[in-house]
Amino acid sequence: MEKKGCQYGTHRTLEPLGILPQPAWKIDNSMEIYDNELLIEVDTLNIDAASFTQIKKQAEGNPAEMEKIMLDIVAKRGKHHNPVTGSGGMLMGTVSKIGSAWAGKTPVKVGDRITTLVSLSLTPLKIHKIKKIHLEKEQVEVEAQAVLFSSGIYAVLPTDMSPSLALAILDVAGAPAQTAHLVRPGQTVLVIGGGGKSGMLCVYEAKKRAGISGTVIGLGSSRGSCDRMRQMGHADVVIQADATDPLAVMRAVSDATKGEMADVIINCVNIPGTEMGSIMSAKDRATVYFFSMATSFTGAALGAEGIGKDVTMLVGNGYCRDHAAIALQTVRENAVLRKTFEELYA
Amino acid sequence: MEKKGCQYGTHRTLEPLGILPQPAWKIDNSMEIYDNELLIEVDTLNIDAASFTQIKKQAEGNPAEMEKIMLDIVAKRGKHHNPVTGSGGMLMGTVSKIGSAWAGKTPVKVGDRITTLVSLSLTPLKIHKIKKIHLEKEQVEVEAQAVLFSSGIYAVLPTDMSPSLALAILDVAGAPAQTAHLVRPGQTVLVIGGGGKSGMLCVYEAKKRAGISGTVIGLGSSRGSCDRMRQMGHADVVIQADATDPLAVMRAVSDATKGEMADVIINCVNIPGTEMGSIMSAKDRATVYFFSMATSFTGAALGAEGIGKDVTMLVGNGYCRDHAAIALQTVRENAVLRKTFEELYA
Ligand SMILES: NC(=O)c1ccc[n+]([C@@H]2O[C@H](COP(=O)([O-])OP(=O)(O)OC[C@H]3O[C@@H](n4cnc5c(N)ncnc54)[C@H](OP(=O)(O)O)[C@@H]3O)[C@@H](O)[C@H]2O)c1
Ligand SMILES: NC(=O)c1ccc[n+]([C@@H]2O[C@H](COP(=O)([O-])OP(=O)(O)OC[C@H]3O[C@@H](n4cnc5c(N)ncnc54)[C@H](OP(=O)(O)O)[C@@H]3O)[C@@H](O)[C@H]2O)c1
Repeated sequence: MEKKGCQYGTHRTLEPLGILPQPAWKIDNSMEIYDNELLIEVDTLNIDAASFTQIKKQAEGNPAEMEKIMLDIVAKRGKHHNPVTGSGGMLMGTVSKIGSAWAGKTPVKVGDRITTLVSLSLTPLKIHKIKKIHLEKEQVEVEAQAVLFSSGIYAVLPTDMSPSLALAILDVAGAPAQTAHLVRPGQTVLVIGGGGKSGMLCVYEAKKRAGISGTVIGLGSSRGSCDRMRQMGHADVVIQADATDPLAVMRAVSDATKGEMADVIINCVNIPGTEMGSIMSAKDRATVYFFSMATSFTGAALGAEGIGKDVTMLVGNGYCRDHAAIALQTVRENAVLRKTFEELYA
Repeated sequence: MEKKGCQYGTHRTLEPLGILPQPAWKIDNSMEIYDNELLIEVDTLNIDAASFTQIKKQAEGNPAEMEKIMLDIVAKRGKHHNPVTGSGGMLMGTVSKIGSAWAGKTPVKVGDRITTLVSLSLTPLKIHKIKKIHLEKEQVEVEAQAVLFSSGIYAVLPTDMSPSLALAILDVAGAPAQTAHLVRPGQTVLVIGGGGKSGMLCVYEAKKRAGISGTVIGLGSSRGSCDRMRQMGHADVVIQADATDPLAVMRAVSDATKGEMADVIINCVNIPGTEMGSIMSAKDRATVYFFSMATSFTGAALGAEGIGKDVTMLVGNGYCRDHAAIALQTVRENAVLRKTFEELYA
């Protein structure tokens, strides 16, 4: 008889009891699954960059020592949750058992090769053997097992692209799916950081949705990312400007739109201080989507208030329903996008 | 002939040139207005609490010394932008001149008594005389003049309530106006911090919008705020729980909604760490409105992703069109709200 689990995995929390598995110090990593869990035979751990660097440093670069540290973390905490950096990573493996009450977001079957999209810092893990540590890729080949709760997200790894390409796309999967929700035909869309990984997906998806009557503007700070946008040809206008200079951004967008400004602004940069430029490029009652994790909540809220701008500002949720399938399909359906992504990330 | 000004007041920036007036070190406080400006005869400065405390301390509580410090700030910077705390405050005064190209958000006429809702840290100000410093109210009676740009927001002070009551309402004016936009008839709405200043306005407005077929749940951590919500009678259900405990919040909301959870969550707390409780109280595809300035952007974005929750999360913009008029009217139209606000804030 399977035991009934909590959707968020609190049935696995051991220390302190009653809280969520992510903030917990220790979780139960016994590999007998509850009714709402998935069992995974793990072959690869993608350790988070900060965590990997810390472990390597502590081990003075010695793989045998790194192995000991990693096994020790999992033995103590039931998960690969680095106590120094607080971070986790992702894993790849093959589904071997599915709980009777599993309610996944996409259909999954035994034998599927999947990658988890939730952090290792909340994933019950048991390592049987570390086979090899790939220092350059920050990956670890293992014989291990892991458990995914029904609230946990994952993606079936596609067979038509390399795992590293798939992981690069999945990392920013929320962005194109949200763009599809936000953009309507005929609208003017500004993608700040449009030549980056998430930005390229957003520019393409925005043009698809805005259509021939719409205008998509891509903005980047370097010659390189702007040339890339021009070559790809999905943006109607490319602006080279520094997104941290709100007046420069506003003037360039005003020029490109004959003073009309943008209906939807999608912020895909990887640096802080770009809230004001995003807000000042907006029409009245426009929508600003902050996908960038470098966004400051108060910078956005007080910035808009300070200039009396009535804009809807959205926090970039990394997840939205079917986002993995949507993002992979986006790259598959467009040859230019696929070629560029293969060159950069495969 | 009037000179043509920039909507955001960059024509006033002196040091460094070309940037916005708020981050500028020095702005032009000559009182000859540009075409898009409003001239105000100022009688009261509401100095920001942090700034006032700093000045008082530096002056060792001596009003004559405080006067000197304040005059010195304005002489050096052209605005009451405290160089130590970085903060400003608000002002009250009477409109004496309106530029020909002024495009205000609400109609204003010469002689109206207004309060600015943008910070003193970006408002051109010239103090002719400091008449009295009110240490307890952190207010300064002055003979002064100030300028408001067309992007600057303000409110005409109502004649049917005290200035301190009006200022208390205007401080959180964005919250009820946004609630009105978000809530539809029949929905289930959770207001976290529903017994606080912004929370009470949101609970009332949410009930008005959700109507008899909807359910409004107010949540507070103290007995006091929960009793207040019960006495006011606008919430259908009152929950006493700690918003920083996501599982406790989720379970209480689940009980109150028979497992259905909420369509709209409005977060009005004044403490950090409540993102997860807000997200976990949501239905799939629900909307979470973070009015609280203590919200962490990454806490919200990564929190939702970590549990695979497809929710729309909004950054609480302090401004939305007509927000001042809407907030004042909200308090006026309901006797219970008005009485409570008068007791607490008048
Ligand atoms: N919300 C979520 O769940 C989630 C998930 C994954 C990632 N993210 C966030 O998404 C953001 C982007 O990720 P990514 O992988 O797409 O990054 P990326 O590939 O590094 O792209 C960043 C882009 O920003 C541009 N940029 C940098 N500085 C700029 C400036 N001053 N002005 C204009 N453009 C500038 C860069 O172009 P130039 O080189 O031309 O400057 C580059 O194209 C990151 O902040 C990441 O944290 C969020
Ligand atoms: N977005 C904007 O533009 C804007 C503008 C103005 C203000 N704000 C922000 O809005 C927030 C609220 O302002 P306010 O003036 O309404 O504050 P307030 O009157 O102090 O109310 C805060 C409420 O939060 C509740 N609370 C505190 N800790 C709690 C906990 N652990 N669990 C549950 N409830 C808790 C309090 O109830 P208990 O006493 O029962 O705990 C109280 O009713 C602040 O963060 C402020 O910065 C934003």
